[in-house]
Amino acid sequence: MTQISLIQIDNYGPWTVEPEPRRETDIQALQSNLYADLCSMFGSRGGLVFFSRFDNMVAVTDGISEEEHRRVQESVNNRYPVTVSIGVGRGTPREATEEATGRLQREGGAQDSSRESSLSFGETGESSTSGTVSSKGHEVQIGHCDIDGVTRKYTDELDGYESHLRIQEGYTRLARRMWEGHGSLTFFVGGDNFISVASGLDRHDFDEVIETVDAFDLKVGVGEGDVPETASRRAKMGLERCRETQERVCYGASVSSTR
Amino acid sequence: MTQISLIQIDNYGPWTVEPEPRRETDIQALQSNLYADLCSMFGSRGGLVFFSRFDNMVAVTDGISEEEHRRVQESVNNRYPVTVSIGVGRGTPREATEEATGRLQREGGAQDSSRESSLSFGETGESSTSGTVSSKGHEVQIGHCDIDGVTRKYTDELDGYESHLRIQEGYTRLARRMWEGHGSLTFFVGGDNFISVASGLDRHDFDEVIETVDAFDLKVGVGEGDVPETASRRAKMGLERCRETQERVCYGASVSSTR
Amino acid sequence: MTQISLIQIDNYGPWTVEPEPRRETDIQALQSNLYADLCSMFGSRGGLVFFSRFDNMVAVTDGISEEEHRRVQESVNNRYPVTVSIGVGRGTPREATEEATGRLQREGGAQDSSRESSLSFGETGESSTSGTVSSKGHEVQIGHCDIDGVTRKYTDELDGYESHLRIQEGYTRLARRMWEGHGSLTFFVGGDNFISVASGLDRHDFDEVIETVDAFDLKVGVGEGDVPETASRRAKMGLERCRETQERVCYGASVSSTR
Amino acid sequence: MTQISLIQIDNYGPWTVEPEPRRETDIQALQSNLYADLCSMFGSRGGLVFFSRFDNMVAVTDGISEEEHRRVQESVNNRYPVTVSIGVGRGTPREATEEATGRLQREGGAQDSSRESSLSFGETGESSTSGTVSSKGHEVQIGHCDIDGVTRKYTDELDGYESHLRIQEGYTRLARRMWEGHGSLTFFVGGDNFISVASGLDRHDFDEVIETVDAFDLKVGVGEGDVPETASRRAKMGLERCRETQERVCYGASVSSTR
Repeated sequence: MTQISLIQIDNYGPWTVEPEPRRETDIQALQSNLYADLCSMFGSRGGLVFFSRFDNMVAVTDGISEEEHRRVQESVNNRYPVTVSIGVGRGTPREATEEATGRLQREGGAQDSSRESSLSFGETGESSTSGTVSSKGHEVQIGHCDIDGVTRKYTDELDGYESHLRIQEGYTRLARRMWEGHGSLTFFVGGDNFISVASGLDRHDFDEVIETVDAFDLKVGVGEGDVPETASRRAKMGLERCRETQERVCYGASVSSTR
Repeated sequence: MTQISLIQIDNYGPWTVEPEPRRETDIQALQSNLYADLCSMFGSRGGLVFFSRFDNMVAVTDGISEEEHRRVQESVNNRYPVTVSIGVGRGTPREATEEATGRLQREGGAQDSSRESSLSFGETGESSTSGTVSSKGHEVQIGHCDIDGVTRKYTDELDGYESHLRIQEGYTRLARRMWEGHGSLTFFVGGDNFISVASGLDRHDFDEVIETVDAFDLKVGVGEGDVPETASRRAKMGLERCRETQERVCYGASVSSTR
Repeated sequence: MTQISLIQIDNYGPWTVEPEPRRETDIQALQSNLYADLCSMFGSRGGLVFFSRFDNMVAVTDGISEEEHRRVQESVNNRYPVTVSIGVGRGTPREATEEATGRLQREGGAQDSSRESSLSFGETGESSTSGTVSSKGHEVQIGHCDIDGVTRKYTDELDGYESHLRIQEGYTRLARRMWEGHGSLTFFVGGDNFISVASGLDRHDFDEVIETVDAFDLKVGVGEGDVPETASRRAKMGLERCRETQERVCYGASVSSTR
Repeated sequence: MTQISLIQIDNYGPWTVEPEPRRETDIQALQSNLYADLCSMFGSRGGLVFFSRFDNMVAVTDGISEEEHRRVQESVNNRYPVTVSIGVGRGTPREATEEATGRLQREGGAQDSSRESSLSFGETGESSTSGTVSSKGHEVQIGHCDIDGVTRKYTDELDGYESHLRIQEGYTRLARRMWEGHGSLTFFVGGDNFISVASGLDRHDFDEVIETVDAFDLKVGVGEGDVPETASRRAKMGLERCRETQERVCYGASVSSTR
């Protein structure tokens, strides 16, 4: 099972242009610092956060309680000129996203001025003790992809914008394929890195997606775990193994739990 | 004329995995905070910065001197566990990007461990007094686009990931079209906003691109100015006018310079 | 019982001047952002952090486990050009500080280049389940003081530096008195606010300290709780009551635990 | 001549407790990030910023124009839940502080809810071209002090709080002495470092102050320059020389202007 939290800045569009359009670099700095703070707060609890559209961010939050969501939300609301609302869902990545979106939308529209700092967490179906992880078998699966030889073939070879554009184009094909074919959420996370939040995919599935996308030579490390961070760390270990073995898909071995 | 600065984190790929892969949310927070700081430092000098790939960022820096670039670079190098190198170019957006990339690549590859904090600024062809703007007629053109009715049609209607993905897909089509057809650099800047760094495009050009892309109902505000920020502000004014008049392309009127 | 964590930047003095002295505003920005991140990470777990000397910060961390300390430490180490070492102690505020200091010093000196990212947590004397709070009766006591009429008497009346200096002078007298007389740690937290980490002080104790210090008209809100944040929130409630009642020392009523 | 900017958060006290007291660590994070951003923006223009009371910050801003102050102010106002007002003054450090304070106070009190984002810059008595430095002979003088052997005698020897307190106590004596005797503004800047914004003091003056304060073995590096950063850098160079020569007061040699 995966727990997805959809984090939306309340009534953000109007804010950016009232009383008159705000300076673009200030908006960019605000968005990026907010995202960094969410990474810091959810991340240090074992979660993962993706910037997505920046005004709508997606977090994988298995094991993070309603109380902890509220703390993070309160902290944002105390430190920024905007507030955020959060909807949370559970199930496969697709189900969880749909539930999280539905909860958020029922609280009010993104530009509904009456919605402010709402949190719709739903039921976890278990005693949600703060900080503890849900029962075994509720595994998060993460695929961490990068492009083989990106520095040699792109960064050091093409101009800076063409490299940028090819990576974004490849990204959207990969992401669409993973979403349609496997209900997985794939995000660009900087450089030549993409992270898929998946569920139950096997080596063949990943291999087939890479084959189909055919944008560039992708490698995928796959990791699973009770909390997103553990799955992410194992996925990175898998990707390191791909680098060593030149295999295309590698599973990250279980690593010590203390780190 | 446009001055483009390509900012690249030195030897970043290896850093993220040595001595072992670093926690993903820390990497995300580092990248976002670095981008926010660059926005703050270049932005308060009239520049614009785009996150692009995060490890490779693109700035429009007309009127920002070599000395000021060095200050920004020094500040980054003092505050982050990584350093950045910068290549600068001038000309049309495409020429400037190519020159900036060429300068950077000649200083060493992105994973060349001997390149650290290099700055290749080139000649401005005029006395580059710090902080002053180059001679008149050197105009930056900015197109600020957003999607008509995005909240109603996407955010409040589709699930959070499908919205994300459609915006990214539309983005890549728009960006590719602007790059191939007009040598313009288009970046996603959060929400449903895209910014094009262009040169000499007229109303018809923008109209034709929107028509061709046909991903969603785009509107474009266009602004020009000696410094990127002025052009950006006027573009936003143009976009506000589009909202009022329901026109697809609007030019931002000249606004008071003191703002 | 109070748990104190002493957080020290490793080998920081030499770093600030090698290879040559770094720009002062960069050092200030680094220190402040690091402190803000620690506030964010410890704070969202119910802790309190004080900037103290900035290169040596003091946190009250009851209920925050060794594992969580390690996560915070790892995050800092991944995002800054410096690392931090942490020593943790327990007991009265004075005992806890001494134990925390001793642990840190035994790991190596502040300028010992071989000490990097050490964490000496000690035994909690109970099963330290992550995130859960220790057994009842282990109460943290917080006194939150401010100056009666500071805006009228200082900020809007004196010049900006004289105000600053009087507050710092009053602070040191208050802090010395609380330390010598009651083994309490008092920190300046901005504006006209001072926070004391105390233990078992009663109304009379606070009253007597204020009387003795006689620097300005102080008011104190006092709060107690199992986690520092709860005690802090109640102390602030107490201070609000002082404002209403014009009493000098007020205890914060118990407030709902969900916020 | 010195230009001092007094930066005050508007109506901050009420904000921190309305509608109810905000979480302390959020307030701390907000203040510290705001200070860091001001360091970044003023600092990259050659200025210096001191946190002072955090809700009242003091900047040395020779050579930074009204337009640039407005940009910094606008950026803060766009990114934080609070706004800042700024008063600017010129003269000796004391005169400049008094003028800056007077300007700010005339705009309205610190808790006057009608004052928001005011900027009172005054006349520079010269054409204030953005970014350029005022005429020669307008020198800023900076003294950068630290404590001889602080790590050995304090940090590695005393407990963490006693070290903290002694440094603060010594600081207030030094600061009071410099203010009363020489009209200089001295600020604690972390670690064992204090920075004095002075004017026309000679070696004997510094020597005599250190002798009188007698809190600990102080060393002072002294630097002068047209912009605060240059003076600060030279002061640090002087302090490095003190370390080498074991002299108590050293002047920083002129250094290359490109850095």
